[in-house]
Amino acid sequence: MFFASDNGGPVHPQVMQALAEANAGYAMPYGKDALMDEVRSRLRDVFEAPEAAVYLVATGTGANVLALATLAQPFQRIYCAPTAHIEHDECNAPEFYTGGGKLHLVGDSHKMTPDALRAAMAGTPTDVHAAQRGPVSITQVTEMGGVYCLDHLRALTGVAQEFGQTVHLDGARFANAMVSLGCTAAEMTWKSGVDAVSFGGTKNGLMGVEAVIFFDPAVAWEFELRRKRGAHLFSKHRYLSAQMAGYLRDDLWVTMARQANASCARLVDGLRAAGGEIVAEPEANLVFARLPRHLHQRLRGAGAVYYLNGPEEGDPDEMVQARFVCDWSIGENGLDDFLTFLNG
Amino acid sequence: MFFASDNGGPVHPQVMQALAEANAGYAMPYGKDALMDEVRSRLRDVFEAPEAAVYLVATGTGANVLALATLAQPFQRIYCAPTAHIEHDECNAPEFYTGGGKLHLVGDSHKMTPDALRAAMAGTPTDVHAAQRGPVSITQVTEMGGVYCLDHLRALTGVAQEFGQTVHLDGARFANAMVSLGCTAAEMTWKSGVDAVSFGGTKNGLMGVEAVIFFDPAVAWEFELRRKRGAHLFSKHRYLSAQMAGYLRDDLWVTMARQANASCARLVDGLRAAGGEIVAEPEANLVFARLPRHLHQRLRGAGAVYYLNGPEEGDPDEMVQARFVCDWSIGENGLDDFLTFLNG
Amino acid sequence: MFFASDNGGPVHPQVMQALAEANAGYAMPYGKDALMDEVRSRLRDVFEAPEAAVYLVATGTGANVLALATLAQPFQRIYCAPTAHIEHDECNAPEFYTGGGKLHLVGDSHKMTPDALRAAMAGTPTDVHAAQRGPVSITQVTEMGGVYCLDHLRALTGVAQEFGQTVHLDGARFANAMVSLGCTAAEMTWKSGVDAVSFGGTKNGLMGVEAVIFFDPAVAWEFELRRKRGAHLFSKHRYLSAQMAGYLRDDLWVTMARQANASCARLVDGLRAAGGEIVAEPEANLVFARLPRHLHQRLRGAGAVYYLNGPEEGDPDEMVQARFVCDWSIGENGLDDFLTFLNG
Amino acid sequence: MFFASDNGGPVHPQVMQALAEANAGYAMPYGKDALMDEVRSRLRDVFEAPEAAVYLVATGTGANVLALATLAQPFQRIYCAPTAHIEHDECNAPEFYTGGGKLHLVGDSHKMTPDALRAAMAGTPTDVHAAQRGPVSITQVTEMGGVYCLDHLRALTGVAQEFGQTVHLDGARFANAMVSLGCTAAEMTWKSGVDAVSFGGTKNGLMGVEAVIFFDPAVAWEFELRRKRGAHLFSKHRYLSAQMAGYLRDDLWVTMARQANASCARLVDGLRAAGGEIVAEPEANLVFARLPRHLHQRLRGAGAVYYLNGPEEGDPDEMVQARFVCDWSIGENGLDDFLTFLNG
Repeated sequence: MFFASDNGGPVHPQVMQALAEANAGYAMPYGKDALMDEVRSRLRDVFEAPEAAVYLVATGTGANVLALATLAQPFQRIYCAPTAHIEHDECNAPEFYTGGGKLHLVGDSHKMTPDALRAAMAGTPTDVHAAQRGPVSITQVTEMGGVYCLDHLRALTGVAQEFGQTVHLDGARFANAMVSLGCTAAEMTWKSGVDAVSFGGTKNGLMGVEAVIFFDPAVAWEFELRRKRGAHLFSKHRYLSAQMAGYLRDDLWVTMARQANASCARLVDGLRAAGGEIVAEPEANLVFARLPRHLHQRLRGAGAVYYLNGPEEGDPDEMVQARFVCDWSIGENGLDDFLTFLNG
Repeated sequence: MFFASDNGGPVHPQVMQALAEANAGYAMPYGKDALMDEVRSRLRDVFEAPEAAVYLVATGTGANVLALATLAQPFQRIYCAPTAHIEHDECNAPEFYTGGGKLHLVGDSHKMTPDALRAAMAGTPTDVHAAQRGPVSITQVTEMGGVYCLDHLRALTGVAQEFGQTVHLDGARFANAMVSLGCTAAEMTWKSGVDAVSFGGTKNGLMGVEAVIFFDPAVAWEFELRRKRGAHLFSKHRYLSAQMAGYLRDDLWVTMARQANASCARLVDGLRAAGGEIVAEPEANLVFARLPRHLHQRLRGAGAVYYLNGPEEGDPDEMVQARFVCDWSIGENGLDDFLTFLNG
Repeated sequence: MFFASDNGGPVHPQVMQALAEANAGYAMPYGKDALMDEVRSRLRDVFEAPEAAVYLVATGTGANVLALATLAQPFQRIYCAPTAHIEHDECNAPEFYTGGGKLHLVGDSHKMTPDALRAAMAGTPTDVHAAQRGPVSITQVTEMGGVYCLDHLRALTGVAQEFGQTVHLDGARFANAMVSLGCTAAEMTWKSGVDAVSFGGTKNGLMGVEAVIFFDPAVAWEFELRRKRGAHLFSKHRYLSAQMAGYLRDDLWVTMARQANASCARLVDGLRAAGGEIVAEPEANLVFARLPRHLHQRLRGAGAVYYLNGPEEGDPDEMVQARFVCDWSIGENGLDDFLTFLNG
Repeated sequence: MFFASDNGGPVHPQVMQALAEANAGYAMPYGKDALMDEVRSRLRDVFEAPEAAVYLVATGTGANVLALATLAQPFQRIYCAPTAHIEHDECNAPEFYTGGGKLHLVGDSHKMTPDALRAAMAGTPTDVHAAQRGPVSITQVTEMGGVYCLDHLRALTGVAQEFGQTVHLDGARFANAMVSLGCTAAEMTWKSGVDAVSFGGTKNGLMGVEAVIFFDPAVAWEFELRRKRGAHLFSKHRYLSAQMAGYLRDDLWVTMARQANASCARLVDGLRAAGGEIVAEPEANLVFARLPRHLHQRLRGAGAVYYLNGPEEGDPDEMVQARFVCDWSIGENGLDDFLTFLNG
């Protein structure tokens, strides 16, 4: 009954199998392994982008900040939602990697609105005293569990283009969003005006691999140098490649995201049935819900693991807010038990 | 017949097994996994340092630069051998992570001498115009395949102490050096005056895990923050822990290093028998040798893989220099064939 | 009729005289000049702080960011008002100098409230994922022309102390604030819990000199190194010293600030008499006022110079907002003319 | 008798006069002053470069590192002589401003040779592991008092061009070199292949002003942002402009350099006559000489000020090495006395 995050669950057997197979014999290091050729080819196919520059790193923060450092100058600002992972959960890594760039929080919603983004960008002074306009970073799935629809994405990237700026998509939960929208990877990215993507794998069944994809390969070499300088180039790269290859084969990544989203939908129904109030409409695989504390205490007592915003102890009838995240595996590993406890 | 590097070989089955076992169920992320408790405990035992701060990262460059950024200020210099990995093979990562520190190359040998180090440190101006004295970084095994003996290490750390500076050991091939010296991990580190260690695993049979160990735990929290800010904190940390646990159990890491060093000794004998000239006495698992080009061409033709310093084509009798590295596995996977070709 | 800023006016003759006198013969460079001894001694007297570390730099941004870089770690955040100069007018210099620190904007007022500061600091997560708590930077005079009273300052520094953090005072208009409060320099700083001060001179009659003062001299050497590394150590330092010495002699700095504040008070009266609406109570030497556009157009036509927030052209009766700043000299150089135009 | 540096002498009266004149009334800040228009125009004339981007900063280190940060990427290296000011006297400012670039010391002479530069650039690996090739920085006058002739400069810039890299000239003593060569400013820069210049004023009679000139104005805006972000944009910019204007009017800068060089030539003759041995041929306004210690002690006793490399006390007949620098003013302020003492 583990809902603390989608980074707590196991790696899918197909990925473990790919790792085991990759472990035979010798391979050239640093991304020159043959499996990386497969990965590159598969991701270009997935994104319908035969020229795209494709790289692997091992952490989501690494993917985000290396992509942003390639897109942004140190005297610029990066526009993002006030709840963005790059603002709250990366310990100044974006500021570090950009050489001292600034995050500019847009509006007050976990989904940036085009109007708020336009106001932020238009309101950025262009004289030499102010941090200059720079790229926009969109988190898809948002940290509150929402998914930008394609029209929304296009509206945001359109604003960025009005101001001559590029767009990064933080897709730590890329697959969950895509499945939620029922669209293609291309539609959710370059066809909607996105320039660079953090294509997450870790939260969706891998050990620790994310792809970074640039649709304009002109920045490829700079990215490679920044990755190496950031100490994120793996010598035994084949083990990253193998994970990503296993992830992409037979659309496993889509299947796992479907499972996670479906589990979340069941969880949401269960929470509602038990008197929980849903905070922000869950559109992928995570949900914030408000529960009476006595219910929370019962769930904890039964061994359920998730994040609580607020004190454990207090008035049993007070509503407390909790976050639940479903990974690909939870549907077969505790969700039923949890739902039983919840409504039992 | 792969001798290009010790980062090209397979992961040891015992490590693969540890990964498979770690893959059951759910685990707390970001280093709070139970396996990390085992790793911490085992490494503290190995180093006879019950208070040591112990962390895992996934790349050797990451281990080095995070350790150095914790030890050095941005207005300081880091003393190292002119052949050091941090100077040649990390694409300015040390300068990046230290916020603009400077590497000060000491002497002209792959092994720093105490005299050269003292001269460098004594000759560093202490006025405000110059980059200030900072930590010393020693590469053990050196990039030329040499191993500092304990007396040599103590002499170097003694010089650092004379000037009030700390010492980092780049132990990407820690195990190979320790086995070569026949000493303990403690003797090769804190008992010889070392403050922080990059304890390599990747080049010795892991997928990609290095430990960073500080014998003074006062810097532990700063290191954790720098690791996170560098995007080197893994969410699914248990897969790093599992590798390192598998590495440490039953002294596998020592066994693998012994195998690698023994293979290298056989290789050196073979190269000598075939007319090769050994460049710098090999003391661990890598060797630079000069061969007649015709011999090199024959080896290449047979499928051997290693680095050549110089042109492939030319006078067949000219001597060309090559680097050969043996990993733990090569003894059962091509060394015999190679020796047969070499002397056949 | 120049009200665009207090950085547009002339240098006081007493300062020019000090520069001329300093120009005789030879002097040791880099702050070892005898005039710096006078400056150090005078500033320690002014601040009643005989142990204080005292340095000169040439720009206000330089003073701020060097002070903050000495107080903050790169993985921390700096708390400041949303209107702070360090946020809006320093083009990411704080992020650059701190090595990638983050500015945390507190509340929604140009004067931070203790409650808002406490909420911001208490709400800062302390886990490894978030940028950590760091120093507080208070702008005195605020960018909106307000002055924190001593009780307010003490309340803010008290909050910082609750969380174990230091306090920086951006005193680009230090003298104007002090004169406004009728207090001493010591009362407005260390007696109120401030640790480091940017003591402005440029906006108050100097060419370009600011002092940076640390009441705890333990950080002095680090500051010196950071100043040099930032390229802010002057070789012909005596010309900085001479300006600051001239500024401090006979309390010229206080006299000039009184003149500036008095001019502003007259200006405020004049603006009100002419139908202007004052935005935020002016407490020192700058004022934001709303005027009918036709009045603005008449003033501009007469040659008055100041910043307008909004379009020059439009409905003549629409109220437009403008900023007026008085320096020490304006009282004798255009203020009367302006007031005549204003009310004529 | 001050020969410690050319940063210890007075500012020329013509410059003081220009400052006094600039002090009338009000001026727009941040480089929008009318005097900057004059400076820009005059420097474009001096350099025969009507499109050049021209900026002022207040320190020589600031000029160098802002120019280099504009030319270099953080994953690159900057090639310079082993005696370069940027290596020895800027406390890691180049590393800081470039975001962690690396200085690559070329050869073992204070004048880089084309062969040594070509060897360094050709020997720089181009794979992702190594810091990449970047700009070349040439110090003219060298730190040892030498001057590169135009053929030498062209040969060096030719090597840079072979590798597609730009060239920066550290001209802290630009005028002294130009006068020594008897060439024009254009010939010593863009006509010889230089892309960016630190055009020194401080060591040649100003308080503290250097120009940075880019012959390709495409980088102008980036430079402006980097200057602001480095806290090197002056609000009361007219006082920088006034100094530089006073410097350029009537070729004062050339006159002063001639005076300094002529004084140095007299000094060299005097040192030789007194038994001093000249170290490296002095070609501008500084000289390293070896003297018997007893002579040194007599000079010190008479009040002469200069740098000694080595201990003050010891065998009176031992030769000790000293550096003497002549500024524009020393010819009328102590040189005669010194020569009298020297040979008396």
